[in-house]
Amino acid sequence: MSIDVKDLISNIKPLDAEAMEKARQWQGKLAIPPGSLGKLEDAAVRLSGITGKLKNDITRCRIIVMAADNGIIEEGIGSAPRTVTAAQTAKMTHYLTGMSSMAHYFGDQIRVVDVGVADPYDAPQVINRRIALGTKNFVHEPAMTRAQAEEAILVGDEMAKKAKEEGVSVIGVGEMGIGNTTTSSAVLCALTGLKVEQVTGRGGGINDAAFAHKKEVIMTGMEKHRPDPNDPIDVLSKVGGFDLAAMCGVFLGAARYRLPVVIDGFISIVAALCAARLCPTAAEYMFPSHASFEIGYARAADELGLQPWFLLNMRLGEGSGCPLAFRVLEAATAFTNNMATFDQASIDDGYLDEIREKDCYTV
Amino acid sequence: MSIDVKDLISNIKPLDAEAMEKARQWQGKLAIPPGSLGKLEDAAVRLSGITGKLKNDITRCRIIVMAADNGIIEEGIGSAPRTVTAAQTAKMTHYLTGMSSMAHYFGDQIRVVDVGVADPYDAPQVINRRIALGTKNFVHEPAMTRAQAEEAILVGDEMAKKAKEEGVSVIGVGEMGIGNTTTSSAVLCALTGLKVEQVTGRGGGINDAAFAHKKEVIMTGMEKHRPDPNDPIDVLSKVGGFDLAAMCGVFLGAARYRLPVVIDGFISIVAALCAARLCPTAAEYMFPSHASFEIGYARAADELGLQPWFLLNMRLGEGSGCPLAFRVLEAATAFTNNMATFDQASIDDGYLDEIREKDCYTV
Repeated sequence: MSIDVKDLISNIKPLDAEAMEKARQWQGKLAIPPGSLGKLEDAAVRLSGITGKLKNDITRCRIIVMAADNGIIEEGIGSAPRTVTAAQTAKMTHYLTGMSSMAHYFGDQIRVVDVGVADPYDAPQVINRRIALGTKNFVHEPAMTRAQAEEAILVGDEMAKKAKEEGVSVIGVGEMGIGNTTTSSAVLCALTGLKVEQVTGRGGGINDAAFAHKKEVIMTGMEKHRPDPNDPIDVLSKVGGFDLAAMCGVFLGAARYRLPVVIDGFISIVAALCAARLCPTAAEYMFPSHASFEIGYARAADELGLQPWFLLNMRLGEGSGCPLAFRVLEAATAFTNNMATFDQASIDDGYLDEIREKDCYTV
Repeated sequence: MSIDVKDLISNIKPLDAEAMEKARQWQGKLAIPPGSLGKLEDAAVRLSGITGKLKNDITRCRIIVMAADNGIIEEGIGSAPRTVTAAQTAKMTHYLTGMSSMAHYFGDQIRVVDVGVADPYDAPQVINRRIALGTKNFVHEPAMTRAQAEEAILVGDEMAKKAKEEGVSVIGVGEMGIGNTTTSSAVLCALTGLKVEQVTGRGGGINDAAFAHKKEVIMTGMEKHRPDPNDPIDVLSKVGGFDLAAMCGVFLGAARYRLPVVIDGFISIVAALCAARLCPTAAEYMFPSHASFEIGYARAADELGLQPWFLLNMRLGEGSGCPLAFRVLEAATAFTNNMATFDQASIDDGYLDEIREKDCYTV
């Protein structure tokens, strides 16, 4: 492991236990049945553990999208041609894709980072950190070198640092890259020992023959390269993708810079698992969003001991689950910051006068 | 059934099939893998079926809270004293409760309607439609008369009408009333024939003895009054509550005035089931929010053929799941209204110039 990646990991510290205890005590004072806001309460406690503050504000949400191509699509396992990666990477910066149209609606920021898009595009707002014009076809050779995998991880860390410096409250982790459900299934197999059939779905949508071939391709790559399950960087470099490695870096960087970070769907959660394998403490900073329709999602969630918040049958990727998860975190701060306590509730309503002005009753 | 309730039901019409077909065709043109936004796509199609429009705007969200007391709490089955109903009813109008703190954060409107609060409170913004000072104890006599149940339903209809007139885009249905998980379990038993143990949880939180007694109380009420499962108004009047009946009226009224309507947790979904039994078409206008931790929720959801969107272990009530569900509907409109189509995606990026100004990149 390079000095820089070691440095990144060694700078990840656990949540602030004292702040979490204070948050729990505060929740005990709020005028609701104990535990009745369920996972919103858990989320509020963890936010306190991340920031060290009892009351938090989710004012600036940012989705970081890692875009890259995958050499494995030479094998015909993609649901769309390679050029779609470049086209969608560009379109995201104009809020015209599924995720970005929703993020824009809610006022969430988007940062699209090119870590390996093969085809040209015209979108000056894409951040260029291209490592190569896509990975190699892992049926024939490792997807990338170990040095490239580490370089991608550090791009993720850089983007988390930038978010912290720019006052971002929470990061979401998305991706764009034709073929990346194949690489994600391969990485998940390698990390867990699960069978290819247990973790492989149809991605963007492929027919039976292509689906069978997708699984064969993954098995071939696994047998050829025998990635080391105890070495996530080895796994990422042999059967992963630049997007996955860079997303893994965002999860690690979020923990390093003490930022809450939201997992999107299948590809995002596989990257999160890589990060948690490199540094288990990093998982304390992660929040789920939706359960992807891709079957591998549930397996990766089990590995992380994490339950999704939404059941929406989504399987788009891009970070499309993040805008709604940001709203859950906002809801968690809303009740924490604004609810009456039992002490307040027992006294006269006179103290309420000052807030009567802010009135939802006036349409 | 009174003429007015008959009139309400007879004015409920099915969704606009043509508008839904157009919405599906439009979704087929959007540049995403077919079906990849899952239930967001389904929601967008139903919104079109409700409004008749392809593109909808969720600009004004309103939670209607029905507040009332339940005579059954004389039996000691409540997690809190009766006075909490009045106190919380008042606090909601100041955004100090769990639901209202979240609704206020997101800019959602709240309307609190007193349909039977027993104790006095000082909150001029509560809408007074009090039918009585709480229901009767159904262990001894029917909770209310049939005429009172119908009166409560019509209050719900009135509130839906008012929402429509005031330009509301979507309604959420909440409640406040100590003892209302007991009445809801009883109503659910009566409507479905399920056993008391299958539909009864601990509500706001009670000990083992109180929980056992809660189930006995429900069985006693059922045996004494034998509500007719084919007559939801009979069920509501014998073992229900004013809140449940009025909420049922909101669901019916929402359908009558063609407004999407969001179900909150256990009590809300039992009211929704009453509405659907009175008029199956009304269910076409309903959207879920979270799966309540109360065990009866899942049974009622099965009856409605409806799957919750969120798994957040919440059991607060009040309408606390509605603010997040409103955001899901917003997300559904965001992609429908703003995404690129395949046709657009294939042409030159020049057409994007005009939207480049609205830039999420500028923090």
